[in-house]
Amino acid sequence: MRVIVIGSGIAGASAAYHLARRGAEVVVVDADRTGAATAAGAGIISPWATRDELHYPFAAAAASYYPELVAELGEHTAEETSYAVVGALVASADEAVLRAAHERVEARAATRPAAGEVALLDPAQARELFPPLAPELAAVHISGGARVDGRRIRASMLDAARARGAELRSGHAELDGDGVRVSGESIAADAVVVAAGAWSGELVAALGVRIDIAPQRGQISHLGVADIAGIAGTPTARWPVVSPVSSHYLLAFPDARVVVGATRETGAGFDHRVTAAGQAEVLEQALAVAPGLRDATLLETRVGFRPASADGQPVLGPLRDHPHVVLASGFGSGGLTLAPYAGSLVADLALGEPVSFDLTPFRPDRFGDG
Amino acid sequence: MRVIVIGSGIAGASAAYHLARRGAEVVVVDADRTGAATAAGAGIISPWATRDELHYPFAAAAASYYPELVAELGEHTAEETSYAVVGALVASADEAVLRAAHERVEARAATRPAAGEVALLDPAQARELFPPLAPELAAVHISGGARVDGRRIRASMLDAARARGAELRSGHAELDGDGVRVSGESIAADAVVVAAGAWSGELVAALGVRIDIAPQRGQISHLGVADIAGIAGTPTARWPVVSPVSSHYLLAFPDARVVVGATRETGAGFDHRVTAAGQAEVLEQALAVAPGLRDATLLETRVGFRPASADGQPVLGPLRDHPHVVLASGFGSGGLTLAPYAGSLVADLALGEPVSFDLTPFRPDRFGDG
Amino acid sequence: MRVIVIGSGIAGASAAYHLARRGAEVVVVDADRTGAATAAGAGIISPWATRDELHYPFAAAAASYYPELVAELGEHTAEETSYAVVGALVASADEAVLRAAHERVEARAATRPAAGEVALLDPAQARELFPPLAPELAAVHISGGARVDGRRIRASMLDAARARGAELRSGHAELDGDGVRVSGESIAADAVVVAAGAWSGELVAALGVRIDIAPQRGQISHLGVADIAGIAGTPTARWPVVSPVSSHYLLAFPDARVVVGATRETGAGFDHRVTAAGQAEVLEQALAVAPGLRDATLLETRVGFRPASADGQPVLGPLRDHPHVVLASGFGSGGLTLAPYAGSLVADLALGEPVSFDLTPFRPDRFGDG
Amino acid sequence: MRVIVIGSGIAGASAAYHLARRGAEVVVVDADRTGAATAAGAGIISPWATRDELHYPFAAAAASYYPELVAELGEHTAEETSYAVVGALVASADEAVLRAAHERVEARAATRPAAGEVALLDPAQARELFPPLAPELAAVHISGGARVDGRRIRASMLDAARARGAELRSGHAELDGDGVRVSGESIAADAVVVAAGAWSGELVAALGVRIDIAPQRGQISHLGVADIAGIAGTPTARWPVVSPVSSHYLLAFPDARVVVGATRETGAGFDHRVTAAGQAEVLEQALAVAPGLRDATLLETRVGFRPASADGQPVLGPLRDHPHVVLASGFGSGGLTLAPYAGSLVADLALGEPVSFDLTPFRPDRFGDG
Repeated sequence: MRVIVIGSGIAGASAAYHLARRGAEVVVVDADRTGAATAAGAGIISPWATRDELHYPFAAAAASYYPELVAELGEHTAEETSYAVVGALVASADEAVLRAAHERVEARAATRPAAGEVALLDPAQARELFPPLAPELAAVHISGGARVDGRRIRASMLDAARARGAELRSGHAELDGDGVRVSGESIAADAVVVAAGAWSGELVAALGVRIDIAPQRGQISHLGVADIAGIAGTPTARWPVVSPVSSHYLLAFPDARVVVGATRETGAGFDHRVTAAGQAEVLEQALAVAPGLRDATLLETRVGFRPASADGQPVLGPLRDHPHVVLASGFGSGGLTLAPYAGSLVADLALGEPVSFDLTPFRPDRFGDG
Repeated sequence: MRVIVIGSGIAGASAAYHLARRGAEVVVVDADRTGAATAAGAGIISPWATRDELHYPFAAAAASYYPELVAELGEHTAEETSYAVVGALVASADEAVLRAAHERVEARAATRPAAGEVALLDPAQARELFPPLAPELAAVHISGGARVDGRRIRASMLDAARARGAELRSGHAELDGDGVRVSGESIAADAVVVAAGAWSGELVAALGVRIDIAPQRGQISHLGVADIAGIAGTPTARWPVVSPVSSHYLLAFPDARVVVGATRETGAGFDHRVTAAGQAEVLEQALAVAPGLRDATLLETRVGFRPASADGQPVLGPLRDHPHVVLASGFGSGGLTLAPYAGSLVADLALGEPVSFDLTPFRPDRFGDG
Repeated sequence: MRVIVIGSGIAGASAAYHLARRGAEVVVVDADRTGAATAAGAGIISPWATRDELHYPFAAAAASYYPELVAELGEHTAEETSYAVVGALVASADEAVLRAAHERVEARAATRPAAGEVALLDPAQARELFPPLAPELAAVHISGGARVDGRRIRASMLDAARARGAELRSGHAELDGDGVRVSGESIAADAVVVAAGAWSGELVAALGVRIDIAPQRGQISHLGVADIAGIAGTPTARWPVVSPVSSHYLLAFPDARVVVGATRETGAGFDHRVTAAGQAEVLEQALAVAPGLRDATLLETRVGFRPASADGQPVLGPLRDHPHVVLASGFGSGGLTLAPYAGSLVADLALGEPVSFDLTPFRPDRFGDG
Repeated sequence: MRVIVIGSGIAGASAAYHLARRGAEVVVVDADRTGAATAAGAGIISPWATRDELHYPFAAAAASYYPELVAELGEHTAEETSYAVVGALVASADEAVLRAAHERVEARAATRPAAGEVALLDPAQARELFPPLAPELAAVHISGGARVDGRRIRASMLDAARARGAELRSGHAELDGDGVRVSGESIAADAVVVAAGAWSGELVAALGVRIDIAPQRGQISHLGVADIAGIAGTPTARWPVVSPVSSHYLLAFPDARVVVGATRETGAGFDHRVTAAGQAEVLEQALAVAPGLRDATLLETRVGFRPASADGQPVLGPLRDHPHVVLASGFGSGGLTLAPYAGSLVADLALGEPVSFDLTPFRPDRFGDG
C-alpha cells in the first residue's frame, strides 16, 4: 500500500513515521514554505493545568503518548528527539488561581501518570527552579512537564521514517484525482495524508473542498543567558518550563537559551515579518513573568504560521467525498503537543485500521463540505 | 606638519578632513572596534528646543556649521553626506509644554537662522507630516531640523580627507612619547588627535593621564515601512525627525526605514549585545509616540558605545602635560550634531591656530590630570 | 487613462515612471518575490565592445538613453540613481583580441557619443585605473562606460513615479479579462504592463498565452576592500568597470565594495540558493582577472533570476490576442542596461503613441501564441 | 586546591572537567574572543593514516582516549558529546599511495584497537559509503574513524565540569604573580592552566615569558545537502569522514550538513574574515574530491584561529620559572583530536600527579624562555 504524505512538519513527519513502521510504502513531499510552524515552534508538553475542558482530553492523551513514542524512536534513529521531562511551573501571584490550578492538576494526575507529582511552591522555591522568575510569583509544580524542540523531534521522526524505507521529496504537491502531482509528475497512491499546516486549506481547495484553516502568526524570541562563550553558569538544561496564566510561556534549552513567546495573530495571512508590536509584546510579557531575563541577549525572533481552524479544534480524518484523502492539520498553537499522537491515529485511518481515540469532533466535514 | 588622528568615527573623520584641507600631512588610524558609536547612530540635527542651557550654545554653533560643511564637502568628494533638512517635530500631548517649547525655539531662531521657521501644529497637521504619529500629539515644527546618517557623513569626510592626501590605516594605535605606535611601528608626529570615542580614556591612560570617559550603551532599532519590495507608498524621505519630550526619538530615511531609539545605558562597559530589556524599551517608547508603526517590520537593532564624560560635556583640547596630544571626544549622545564642528576646532588647535569658540569648559584637565 | 504595471523591478519601475510622467493614472503591483533580478544585479552600462551584432543596436540605444533619463529623474526625486560614468576596461592578455575590440569600439563610438573616448592601455596603465587587475592584462579603455546599482535606479524611478501620482501596492496580481486581480480585488485598466521578470511567463499563461521566458540563475558576490572600518585607502568610487572576454565582470562601488559575477545557470528553476559550484566559479573567474582581490573580504553573495527568453532577445510589445496587455521582459543578463529604455518605449505602446525604436524582433507572438 | 583555567575552548574545557572530577576547586575564565578555534572547527578523529611519524604517537593515544572520555561524560552530563564513530575514508586515485596507506594503517591498527577494521575499497564501494565522492577515487576504509563537533564536545565537558562544582566566569584574564586578575579582581590560585588557544602567547608575555604560538587562520565551509526542508534523502549521519592526501577534508553531520575545509593561513594575525581566495580554495578542493557536492548549498563559512607553535608540536607543561602556570596549547589543526586527552594530562600536572604520557617534547621552555 502506497501513501503520500504532503507536508513534513511535525504532523507529516509523525504520519510518515507511523505509516512506514506499519509497513506502508511512504513518499513524503514538502514544498519548504517560509514560516512553517514546526521550525519556529518550541514546545511545552504540559496540558494538565488547562482550563479548556474541550481541548484537554486529546491533549492529555497526546502528552501520555510522548514517552512511548520517544522510546520507540530510539530504536529507529540516532537522531535525538530533544524531548526532556524537566517539570512545569504554572506561575501566578494570585493564590486563589494557584489553588484552583493545583486542584485541577492533582485530579487529572490521578488518572494521567505522565503528569507526575504535583506540588504548590512558594516564590522562593519557584525561583530556585527557575531563577529569573519574578519574586512575587508562586507556582504549581508538575514534575511530568516536558519540553521539545520542534525541529529536532521532526528530524528524528523523518529519519526513522527514512530508515523504514520512506522516500523524501522536495516539491510543490497538488491533489489530483487519485493521487498527487509533484512538480508536474503524477504519483498514484492508495491514500494521501494532507499535513500541510496552515497551507492545508489551499491544498484541498483544488478538490473543491472548503476547510476553514487559516494561518495564525506566532512571533517567538530566543534569549541567551550565556556566561562564558555560549555556556550558562547555571544549568539551564534543568530549568522547568513556565506557563503563566496568559498564553505566553517560557522554556529553557541546554545551550543557555530561553525561548519566550508567543504572539497569536490572526488576519495577517502569510506575512512573514517580525513586527514592532509583536516583538514588544513578546518581550514585555516575558519580562513581566521573568524580570531576571532583562539583561539576557535577544538572539533571534522566529515567525511561524500555525494552522488554526475556525473552531480551534484539530482537523483529523478523511474528506467525505474523497475518502482516500486524510487530513492532519488544524492544531493551532498545540501542534508540538498534539501532532505526534495525531499522526499515529491518522496513519491508522489511512491504513484502514481501527483508531483508538474518538476523532468525531475533529471530522473535516464539520465545516460544511469537508 | 604631520598630524596623526586616532579614530575614524565622525570626530576623527572631521578632524582629518579639516586638517588635510588646511594642508597638514594626515595619517588616520582606526582599530575597527565593535560598537563604534558613529556606525550605530542616526542623527537628528535640531538642538533649538533643548531645555539644557549648558549644552545649547555649542550645539547651536555646531548645527549652524553643518550646511557650510556639507556644501564644502561637495567640492571634495562625490560621496553623499546624507545630510537633509526635513524639518523637526517636537511632539507632546501637553499644551503648556508645547507653548514653552515654541517660545524657546522662536527666541533662539531669531539669532540662529539655521533653525528656519517655527510653528505650532495641531495633531492633524503633525500627522500629515509624520503619518504614524499618535493622534493626541500636537507639535512644534522647526523647519530647519535636519537628519544625517552617521556612516555616510563619516564616509564623505574621510573620502574628502583622502582626496586631500590623508592616509588611512587600519591598526591598534598606542600613544608613545612624541608619536604613535601602530601595530608595532612607531610613527612620529607633530600633533596627535585622539578621537577614539568611548575608547579615548584607555588610550591616554598609557601616558598616565586619567580622563573620565566611559561607554554609554545605546540600542537603536530600524523599522521598515515598505509597501512594495523596499519602497514605501508614502515618501518617507520627506518625513520630519520627531523628538518627544523624553530622550527617545524617531527619524525616517528615504528607503522606507524609520530609525527609533535609543537606550542610554551606563555601567554596561563594552558589552555589545541587544538585550531583552533594551529592545523592549526602544519599541515601547517608539510605539507610544508613533502607534502607526505597530505593524512596521523590525529590520535590525544596532548597538553603539557613546563616549560619555563624567560631567556630560565634550572633552576638547590639548592634554596639560602633553600639549601635542589633542582630545576630541566625550560627545555622549550628541556626537552626530557636535563632532563635525568640534573636529574643525580641534584641527585649528592641532595646527596652533586660533579657535573661534571658547573651549574652556571642555578642557581635558578639568578631570584632575587631563 | 489607467495603466496597471505588474512588477516593480527595473522594467516595471521604468514603465511606471514614464507612464506617470506622460499623465497616465498608474498603479504598480509587486508580489515581492524572492530572487528578483533587479535586487541582485549590479550593472555595467557599456555595450560598445560586444561581438553580438544582434544585441548591439538596442543596447547602444539604451546606453545612450541613460544620461538623459538620469538628468530628468533629478527633477522628480531626491533619490540618487547611483548611475556613474567611471569608464570601462575590456581586459585581455591577447593583443589580437584587444586590437579587434579597439577597432570595434572606435567605429561604434563615432556614431554613439555616449561611448566617449576609446584608448588602448598597456598593463601598467590598466592597473593604475583598476589596481587589483592581473599584471599580464592590457585593456581597451572606454571613457563612457558606466555603472549602476539595480536597487537604487529602481528606487529613484519608483519615487519619481510616486511623485507624479503613481500608486504602489503590494500583492499577487493575476491577469483577468480586462484588468487585474490583486489579492482578490479586481482592478479595471485601459492597459496592463507585464514587467514581472522571470515570472512573466506564468502570468500570461492565465490568458492561455505561452511566452518562452524562463529563469536564468545568477550568483554574484560582493567583495570588501576596506582599509579602515568600511573605507578603502584607495578611491574605489573612481575604479572603472571591468569586462573580460568571458561573461564574468567586475565593478566597484564607493563603499569599498567590488561586485564580481556572475553565473548564468539555466534549468535550475526558481531554486534560490548559493551553491558550492556557483560560488567557486564566481570567485575563480574574478581572481583570474583580478588577483589583487585575493585578500578581499567575501561580504555576501546574492542570487537573482534573470528573465531569459528562448532566443535571448527581449520580449516587448502587446499580446496578439490581448492587445491591452503589453510585455516588458526577457532582458536576460542585460536588464540593467536595457530595461530603463525599454520601459520608456513600452509606456509609449501602452498609451498608443508612436515608438521611436523598431520593436518587431521583440514581438511576443514570435513564440507562437504570444 | 584551587585551579584557575584560562580559556574554555576544547583544551580548557577538558582541563576543567578533569580537574573538577579529581576534586579540585575550579574556576574557568573566558574572554569570548572572536575566532576561537573550537567554535569554528569540525573534527575528524582518525590519526592512523598520517605519514607524520612525529605527531602520530600522541595523536594515537588521544584518539584511543576518546571513547573512554565520552562514556565517562555520559555519567556527568545530559549534553551530547556529538562524538560518533562513522568510519574514515582515505581517498586517492593513486593505487600506490593507497596501498602504502593501507599497510601503514593495518600495522598501526594491530596495536591500536580504536582504529577498528581496515580495508581497501574500490571506487564503487567508496561511493556507496560517501555518495558525492569523485568516481575515480578508491579509498582505505578505517572503521574506527570518528567525527566530533567542536562546540558540542566542549559544551558537554563544561557542563560536566559545572556539575562537579566548577565555576564559569566571563572576563579578560591576566596572569599576575600567584594568581589571575579577572576584569580587575585578583583571584588567588594554587595553579593556573593557560588554555587560551592562539592567544596563549600574549597571556604569558605578561610574565616576561616568550612562547612561540601564533594564530593560523582556518576557513571552513558548511554545505547543505537537504532534500526536504533541512533533511537529506540519504542518511548523512552515517557518511564516513573523508581525508584525501592534501590537508583538506570532508565530514558529514546528521542534519544534512557536510563540512569541508580548511585553509591553513599563517601571517594573517587575528584578521577574522572570509576572504575571496580562502573561500575559493576551500570549495575547489572539496569539489575536486567530491564533485557530487557541486549543487550543495553554501550555508556558512566559519573562521577560526588555530594555536600554531613554531615547531608544529603542542605546548604542554609548566613554565620553567613559574611552575604553577601550566600551558595547554599549540595544537595547530589537531586540537579536536588532541586537546581532550591533553587536558586530562594537564590536569594531572596541575595537581602534581604523575602523567601517563611523556610530555618532554612538548615542554614550553623549548622556545628559549618558556
